[in-house]
Amino acid sequence: MPHIGISNDLPGITGLMVQRPDTAAPLNQLAETLLRGPGTLSRGERELIAAYTSELNETQFCSASHSAFAAAQLEGGRDVVKAVLHDLDEAPVTPRLRALLRIAAEVRGPVRALSPEVVAAARAAGAGDDEIHDTVLIAAAFCLYNRYVSCLDTELPTDPGYYEEGAERIVTRGYAPPR
Amino acid sequence: MPHIGISNDLPGITGLMVQRPDTAAPLNQLAETLLRGPGTLSRGERELIAAYTSELNETQFCSASHSAFAAAQLEGGRDVVKAVLHDLDEAPVTPRLRALLRIAAEVRGPVRALSPEVVAAARAAGAGDDEIHDTVLIAAAFCLYNRYVSCLDTELPTDPGYYEEGAERIVTRGYAPPR
Repeated sequence: MPHIGISNDLPGITGLMVQRPDTAAPLNQLAETLLRGPGTLSRGERELIAAYTSELNETQFCSASHSAFAAAQLEGGRDVVKAVLHDLDEAPVTPRLRALLRIAAEVRGPVRALSPEVVAAARAAGAGDDEIHDTVLIAAAFCLYNRYVSCLDTELPTDPGYYEEGAERIVTRGYAPPR
Repeated sequence: MPHIGISNDLPGITGLMVQRPDTAAPLNQLAETLLRGPGTLSRGERELIAAYTSELNETQFCSASHSAFAAAQLEGGRDVVKAVLHDLDEAPVTPRLRALLRIAAEVRGPVRALSPEVVAAARAAGAGDDEIHDTVLIAAAFCLYNRYVSCLDTELPTDPGYYEEGAERIVTRGYAPPR
């Protein structure tokens, strides 16, 4: 049961956002900018960074949500997302994306400067300043979203189609404020 | 030296924000909402939660910045902020604020539900759903800002008056987009 009263029965961050539209607005604007705004990483790649960070942080609601959003926008779909979450080293992704996901893994750990090795590996795989910056900021943002959802002990959806319905909405309409 | 090229000599998050105005806009909007928007916690209390979280995360730029912003808006000023950062148990703050700062400390740790004890203690000290929600979200947001600043290995200011000048700007103008 959530740690605060929520006067709707929506799961995860959705219940919190309907409860608190004042803070939902900038949180949605941030997600829209980072995951769907102009950028050199594809929307599918950015959602995969979000899903992978959330999986490492063990926030099931965010991991399942952004896995569905990534699958809907990545070549290879669900299988690629599952492979990344299961074993990044063996997953069928580009060397650049694999290196960026390793940066995301460092970001979600203890708060400190990235190791020179992980940055050098990303540059060797073709990532530039913008891709490194965007990866760090997406992973850092999910250190916020994951804690918001997990610390307040929000509920998981009971409807098995919940995440796929969410994916359809995100792909077509984006991170608009909740209804 | 920062892990990405920054074509200005501004320290900490400021250099990143001038470099990337696209992501600076929603990051500033979030800070404005959480730290200065309508709310039942005072602006000084909210800045103190930000400073305390940043101190525990060892992000010196954010800890010093928000300590200055808290000191400028809290009764007791600098001495109270220093006392909280030095030893929360003995610091001269209200029982409610002390209990909320203990919630912030849990939020910045491993990603998991708050312990029932820390929530119950906050409620016993007079905190309600909104204060608990806002504390969790501020501490979670600084898990983002701290990582953004620390992971990219940004520089510290060399001007000893930097943080106090920042405080004057924040108190009078808020988290406007950087010049």
